[in-house]
Amino acid sequence: MSELHSARIAALRRLMAERNWDAVIITGTDPHCSEYPAARWKQVEWLSGFTGEAGDIVVTADHAGLWTDTRYFIQALEQLQGSGVVLHKMKVPGAVGIPEWLAGKFPDGAVIAVDGLCQSYEAVGDLPGRVVDVPDLPSLLWEGRPDIPCTPVTTLGEEQVGVSRADKLRRLRKYLLRNGCDSIFLSSLDEIAWLLNVRASDIEYNPYVISFLAVSQDSVDWFVRKDIPGLQEDSDTVDSFEDIAADDVQIRGYSEWQELLASRYTEGERIFLDPSTLNWSVGRCIADIYGEDGLQFGESPVKLWKAVKNDVEIASLREACFEDGVAMEKFLFWLEREVSCRCVTEWEASERLSSLRAEIPGYRGDSFGNISACGANAALPHYLTPRVGSAELPRRGLYLVDSGGQYIFGTTDITRTVPLGPCSRLEMEDYTLVLKGMIGLAMAVFPEGTAGCQIDAAARMPLWRTLRNFGHGTGHGIGFYLGVHEGPQDIRQNFNRQPLLPGMVLSDEPGLYREGLHGIRHENMILCRREGESEFGSFLSFETLTLCHIDTAPLLRELLSDEEAGWLNAYNEKVYTTLGPALNAEQREWLRKKTLAI
Amino acid sequence: MSELHSARIAALRRLMAERNWDAVIITGTDPHCSEYPAARWKQVEWLSGFTGEAGDIVVTADHAGLWTDTRYFIQALEQLQGSGVVLHKMKVPGAVGIPEWLAGKFPDGAVIAVDGLCQSYEAVGDLPGRVVDVPDLPSLLWEGRPDIPCTPVTTLGEEQVGVSRADKLRRLRKYLLRNGCDSIFLSSLDEIAWLLNVRASDIEYNPYVISFLAVSQDSVDWFVRKDIPGLQEDSDTVDSFEDIAADDVQIRGYSEWQELLASRYTEGERIFLDPSTLNWSVGRCIADIYGEDGLQFGESPVKLWKAVKNDVEIASLREACFEDGVAMEKFLFWLEREVSCRCVTEWEASERLSSLRAEIPGYRGDSFGNISACGANAALPHYLTPRVGSAELPRRGLYLVDSGGQYIFGTTDITRTVPLGPCSRLEMEDYTLVLKGMIGLAMAVFPEGTAGCQIDAAARMPLWRTLRNFGHGTGHGIGFYLGVHEGPQDIRQNFNRQPLLPGMVLSDEPGLYREGLHGIRHENMILCRREGESEFGSFLSFETLTLCHIDTAPLLRELLSDEEAGWLNAYNEKVYTTLGPALNAEQREWLRKKTLAI
Repeated sequence: MSELHSARIAALRRLMAERNWDAVIITGTDPHCSEYPAARWKQVEWLSGFTGEAGDIVVTADHAGLWTDTRYFIQALEQLQGSGVVLHKMKVPGAVGIPEWLAGKFPDGAVIAVDGLCQSYEAVGDLPGRVVDVPDLPSLLWEGRPDIPCTPVTTLGEEQVGVSRADKLRRLRKYLLRNGCDSIFLSSLDEIAWLLNVRASDIEYNPYVISFLAVSQDSVDWFVRKDIPGLQEDSDTVDSFEDIAADDVQIRGYSEWQELLASRYTEGERIFLDPSTLNWSVGRCIADIYGEDGLQFGESPVKLWKAVKNDVEIASLREACFEDGVAMEKFLFWLEREVSCRCVTEWEASERLSSLRAEIPGYRGDSFGNISACGANAALPHYLTPRVGSAELPRRGLYLVDSGGQYIFGTTDITRTVPLGPCSRLEMEDYTLVLKGMIGLAMAVFPEGTAGCQIDAAARMPLWRTLRNFGHGTGHGIGFYLGVHEGPQDIRQNFNRQPLLPGMVLSDEPGLYREGLHGIRHENMILCRREGESEFGSFLSFETLTLCHIDTAPLLRELLSDEEAGWLNAYNEKVYTTLGPALNAEQREWLRKKTLAI
Repeated sequence: MSELHSARIAALRRLMAERNWDAVIITGTDPHCSEYPAARWKQVEWLSGFTGEAGDIVVTADHAGLWTDTRYFIQALEQLQGSGVVLHKMKVPGAVGIPEWLAGKFPDGAVIAVDGLCQSYEAVGDLPGRVVDVPDLPSLLWEGRPDIPCTPVTTLGEEQVGVSRADKLRRLRKYLLRNGCDSIFLSSLDEIAWLLNVRASDIEYNPYVISFLAVSQDSVDWFVRKDIPGLQEDSDTVDSFEDIAADDVQIRGYSEWQELLASRYTEGERIFLDPSTLNWSVGRCIADIYGEDGLQFGESPVKLWKAVKNDVEIASLREACFEDGVAMEKFLFWLEREVSCRCVTEWEASERLSSLRAEIPGYRGDSFGNISACGANAALPHYLTPRVGSAELPRRGLYLVDSGGQYIFGTTDITRTVPLGPCSRLEMEDYTLVLKGMIGLAMAVFPEGTAGCQIDAAARMPLWRTLRNFGHGTGHGIGFYLGVHEGPQDIRQNFNRQPLLPGMVLSDEPGLYREGLHGIRHENMILCRREGESEFGSFLSFETLTLCHIDTAPLLRELLSDEEAGWLNAYNEKVYTTLGPALNAEQREWLRKKTLAI
């Protein structure tokens, strides 16, 4: 593979020489600043072979570098071997970002070519020198580049998501009025999917429709590919488009936005744009139409609205966690039995879990690629279970499985670490301390207005006290039949000021990773809710949504406080009484034993 | 008093009319942006009668308002009665700050007069309209305004503070070189005192010398009042000035900086300024001399250097906490005995405590005004014990005493809440939960790089869990024979990114305040230190410096975990074994009983 990538980089350098570009930046995102791009926008992988979810490449005449963060260092070093691409480490002390690196490399300025469609509007301002926008730059070299995806479209009704498309659009229009804007242009795929109550499967694991959306007081224009293969026969999609059009949404071609915005524009209009999700090419075109004074930059309000689930969504999510929990218990039952009598690989286990989820009515796919890992493999937080040659599960130590489902009634994300046999003292210590952290956050109560970074330590303190820590966030937002990662809230060691609000759903997933030994993560989904009022103000807490027992065998009871043990016993009991009736007799009896109080 | 203040406001309005000013802003600070100004700069009190430590006044033709925060609402309402000054609440939801209020009041712009000496350079930019700088504005009306204070000056040697003046100046010059600046102009009184190893008592409780300082690669100019009454006879001050001059520090008049900077300036020079402590008048003058391009704004590095104590300072602080603890134990012994047999007032108790501290060699005054409060008075976190008519201590409930000393070998700050007799169940619950919080923070371990806001919840979670909270920060930095409040670090619910560093000293002081009932605060001084290294990184923790027993009588043992009880027992035992030998037999026996394990 590496020769292929060297050849591609060489071809890019020839193009650079022809066009007098000093540097080219190839980013790992799409025109919608998506975290997980579709195949068409896996240009970083195409150029370098690196498959990590975060990474940008810079090529100059004499250097090719990949900028990525701690999560992907090992993977990057392996995948870049022989490609000639050098790893630049980000999120480490003394890290030098792309703008600084370019400024150092070209102190007298440089011509930097970017694919403006895949460059966020926010980030481009930091680049030194003259930046040249070459939309779809990779297409100049990439033979057989996949097309923009286009999959069947579904709509969700008010009974499924709680708020109608028309009501959401009304809310957005009020917001625009209050903020002195005539219209808004949305690029973010999950915001568009939420606002229009629309889903597809244009991106693996992410039920989005690749599109842009323009909303003004008297128009809604949705720019989307309509040439879905077999559209005429696919009555669902035809119905969906009709449903959407019935709310006065004009359905237009994916690329028609520029022409339309230009034709609509009248002097003095202001358009709202979110620079964090807008790409540079689109942003420049809109700036040409509206002029700098006609642009109002800010965080799209849809981001926060989407994150606060309504009662219908919350009820559905409880249902999703029930169904998902039944599948998980069936899986763990199967796993324990199979491992005891035959050889099971990580991959087989992963496939089994997905097939159990697939039996659930309303299943639309997994919410991300399963992480199915035993022993030292589990020490890689972003381990990708290989289809061929994955490890055989031993009858000792710990097995970690991080997975989730996309259902039309919600998105799930759960991690369980279970023993495959005897565990070492260190495994048990780590297992118990990580669990203390998960419980600590699950039991937290905090005043209204508190941000995730202010309570993140609740999940880390038991680990910190013993000089242990984990290098990822404790919690990320989770969408409703949307992305398994969503903002604006999170629970981690950053300075994100977004308060946690009742209705937000997050993960609670502390972990511990010992290179070459084992990896542990316990992950539940938690719902932020009102806890109560007092003379000291209004307080919030979490309801744990996930239903799946936590194995007590690897626990060191003496490390748990009575309160923590009480939480765990109550949780396991709830899992048994809730899920038990949905299991067969053998599974139910197995679960009863698994959930006995400690 | 209120008529006096109404008359002063009327006089100010006449001046405003004469000079065509639409509004005047009177701030509660001095030309050095000090938290606690000397009498000369108590212009807010002079104009309105309000004595709180934070408050700014705006006067227009038809309105006079005081802007202050939650801590002072009750006090402000009482003190402003009859003055015609209206309270504007800050740090509450929907608060309207002075700039916004002025913008709303004068939509077409206004002429706003300020005393630029008492207006921070940072804040003035937010003001709408045309801002007129009238240095020393209050002097135009304030008859008998106190002069700039001028008290005897002491210097501290390397053996006392660990680093010589010359070494500190060398460090600063290196910093300037690295940051491309030729010089720095310092206004912050604690930074100047730290850098020059110099102390005085120009401000009550704060051992500062009112002065400015300019440092370049080849000069140090200290602008300070030299006309100290009786200077010729005060050989200490004469010696101090000689000591300082021996390090090539030029001692100049307080107001000579402008002339000197102007005469020294050469084309293209850059000067470093900290806009958070620079006043507007001085900043404008310097900008006139250097031009906008010659100004480099940033946080003064001295702020952080000062906050990180060296080994000599830390050893001295331990000594200060020992001496202070002995005084505290003598006081608490006296208090318990006296209250049991006669009537003691809050004021008498406060005086007794100060006199016990005053017996310590090296005592230079209290570090702030004692808070000596029983019952409902203790529910006011900034209660000022009145000299006349203070409450008699009852033989029931809780008594709170927050106090500290300035010693030439360190600054202390301690709060103890002790029972005066039987306590209610609610008092005991609150007492125990606040203590859990204090212990939680004291036991915290956290990775290097952690900021105070990321562990503040450790002190609050036990309160939050029962819907309780307190409205002030958990911890503030504490200087070394400097201010009892210092930055840049703190532990509170803000988003201060300053990591806690080994050597920083802070308070650990959660509290609980029930209006009309009782107030509780437990406060120890804690030292940030290295805890250890592991494969997961480098970890920090706290050493508790304060030595004074924590009363176990009001504790509800069942609310403490075994670990918390263990911490408390070990702490009380340490207090007994360390302080016992410095007490007389009767006091020692009393302390032994007080520190018995629970």
